[in-house]
Amino acid sequence: MNRLRLSFSTLGVDAVLVSHLPNILYLCGFSGSAGLLLVDESRATLFTDSRYTFQAREEVHGARVHIAKHGLLRAAGEELKRRRRRRAVAYATSHATVAQKQALDAVVRGKVRWVSDDNAVEKLRAVKDADEIARMRAAALLISDVFRKVLPVIRPGISELDVAAEIEYGIKHGGGSGPSFDTIVACGPRSAWAHARPTSKLLGKSELVVLDQGAILKNYCSDMTRTVFLGRASARVRRMYQAVLQAQEAAKRSIRPGVKAGEVDRAARRTLKRFGLASYFTHSTGHGLGIEVHEMPRLGKGEETVLQEGMVVTVEPGVYLEGLGGIRIEDDVVVTAQGAVDLTTAPRDFLEL
Amino acid sequence: MNRLRLSFSTLGVDAVLVSHLPNILYLCGFSGSAGLLLVDESRATLFTDSRYTFQAREEVHGARVHIAKHGLLRAAGEELKRRRRRRAVAYATSHATVAQKQALDAVVRGKVRWVSDDNAVEKLRAVKDADEIARMRAAALLISDVFRKVLPVIRPGISELDVAAEIEYGIKHGGGSGPSFDTIVACGPRSAWAHARPTSKLLGKSELVVLDQGAILKNYCSDMTRTVFLGRASARVRRMYQAVLQAQEAAKRSIRPGVKAGEVDRAARRTLKRFGLASYFTHSTGHGLGIEVHEMPRLGKGEETVLQEGMVVTVEPGVYLEGLGGIRIEDDVVVTAQGAVDLTTAPRDFLEL
Repeated sequence: MNRLRLSFSTLGVDAVLVSHLPNILYLCGFSGSAGLLLVDESRATLFTDSRYTFQAREEVHGARVHIAKHGLLRAAGEELKRRRRRRAVAYATSHATVAQKQALDAVVRGKVRWVSDDNAVEKLRAVKDADEIARMRAAALLISDVFRKVLPVIRPGISELDVAAEIEYGIKHGGGSGPSFDTIVACGPRSAWAHARPTSKLLGKSELVVLDQGAILKNYCSDMTRTVFLGRASARVRRMYQAVLQAQEAAKRSIRPGVKAGEVDRAARRTLKRFGLASYFTHSTGHGLGIEVHEMPRLGKGEETVLQEGMVVTVEPGVYLEGLGGIRIEDDVVVTAQGAVDLTTAPRDFLEL
Repeated sequence: MNRLRLSFSTLGVDAVLVSHLPNILYLCGFSGSAGLLLVDESRATLFTDSRYTFQAREEVHGARVHIAKHGLLRAAGEELKRRRRRRAVAYATSHATVAQKQALDAVVRGKVRWVSDDNAVEKLRAVKDADEIARMRAAALLISDVFRKVLPVIRPGISELDVAAEIEYGIKHGGGSGPSFDTIVACGPRSAWAHARPTSKLLGKSELVVLDQGAILKNYCSDMTRTVFLGRASARVRRMYQAVLQAQEAAKRSIRPGVKAGEVDRAARRTLKRFGLASYFTHSTGHGLGIEVHEMPRLGKGEETVLQEGMVVTVEPGVYLEGLGGIRIEDDVVVTAQGAVDLTTAPRDFLEL
């Protein structure tokens, strides 16, 4: 919260109204599903509703708790209106809906000058401290262990959904509060859908299987993809796998403080181009990871964000050929002065099961 | 899509730009995580990105697919700008963020007059057709079966997380694509947190356990809560349970086409008041359910929405006493000419395990 207050002068504001729940969790520890956090120069107020009376009392630090009777926007708006002078308040244009903004304006009636928060909290969150990195390492180890344990059931005849169920069971059984996103298990031609949802389709012989999975542990996410083959793969598929793996390694090697995010993406694409596969890589190379599974920075084409020590990002090149299937390999790495350090530990060799 | 077009004249528009993903799924079948659907008087266009090229081809009906290279908002905005005359277009102020609206405005530059969509798609979705109700019945049966199967493991010594893991495993193993929300398993005093997330805390003897769980099956949600006691409950706890059960039954009895949603909430509160427990009922009585786990209508205090045949709602009164714990009983019901018909089937008797 104090680091956020340091950005008040840059933003030209006296307060920030935080509506995005992961930002609220980051700033004051509240994990409920309804909250608004008003951070003033000298104090902070969390607005929530009566469902969270006990929970807020237990979780919230650094802010007083206001249980709103008639909606959080109205309570926060009335608090802002009560101030003696007109104030400049930052808010997240990328999270507040047009309707929320209209409802707030109807309460504050010109008493507030609204300013875009320019992702102030997200920028703080992009750089993790030692405690956060320790949590993320634990979340990454958890998903790596789960993958190792589930490997024996990944065989022809089991459904995509059943494999996903095993993975998600493993996450919770291992102490995670749940998957960090809907687990992807996609076999055969469906593996070419970069974001396929698992179905009751049975895994078949001589098929690629993409498994994209992550755990939330103590509020922090992991996100890891492995691709395996059921049976003996053709030379073409093996070569594709090696191309993706080399692209991933090149991307990891390019990571160090001071490098632009777009450079990492370029390193992966350059390798795939050597294999004639660049046009089949249809998404960006990675993304920040933390309380949310997608955070700043994005490792995409031309991204200008400069990597800093303590950032945690995924590195996940992939190639997708309609009809044949897809291959993606994804790890979570932390940016250190010595370069990228892997947090995920599951084997990256080509597994023919 | 044609039912949506019938609302164009009421809204005073020539088109609706749909951004909320569940609305897009409802209207054209696309289940990806990035989409914008422009519904014109005579045609419709789904904008998505290259990750979804194959998936969109397979899933989308009633709309052509446009794979956007430079962002969906830009692609949709350019499509709108291309029209000969200035048009009125409805959009969801309750879903579009201020930043998205600003980005769209920067592209269309005054060529569009924006109008609030007044929840046009959500209103269509609130009333389910026979196929939707069949799916919802299947999703409700699935979660009821899962609860029955998991009952034997709900014993002192197992952790909240492990019970949640068993439930979510059961959902996927039963063919569901996953839980419809993060499963709640909360024991002892934590059961008084209406929305507690499961922890590694072990279930103890003589504790209340609230289990709130739901499944997504063929894109439709179920949502069911049961509360059990580990051991023999005190007379006070048993009386609390009977109060909640009677409140739920009163609420269900009040449901029929033509009744206001607020009446159902009042029926539950009236019963709890008779038991002196009304002040411990800290949330509303229920909510609509469908593609999303929270939909229209809300069954809350003073809600004016009139119930219609084909609506599907939860009925879930609860009481929460700090220190002692909470009790909630929740079923999914469909509104028929004959009144509320239960979709969830798990036992509602007080289970002392």
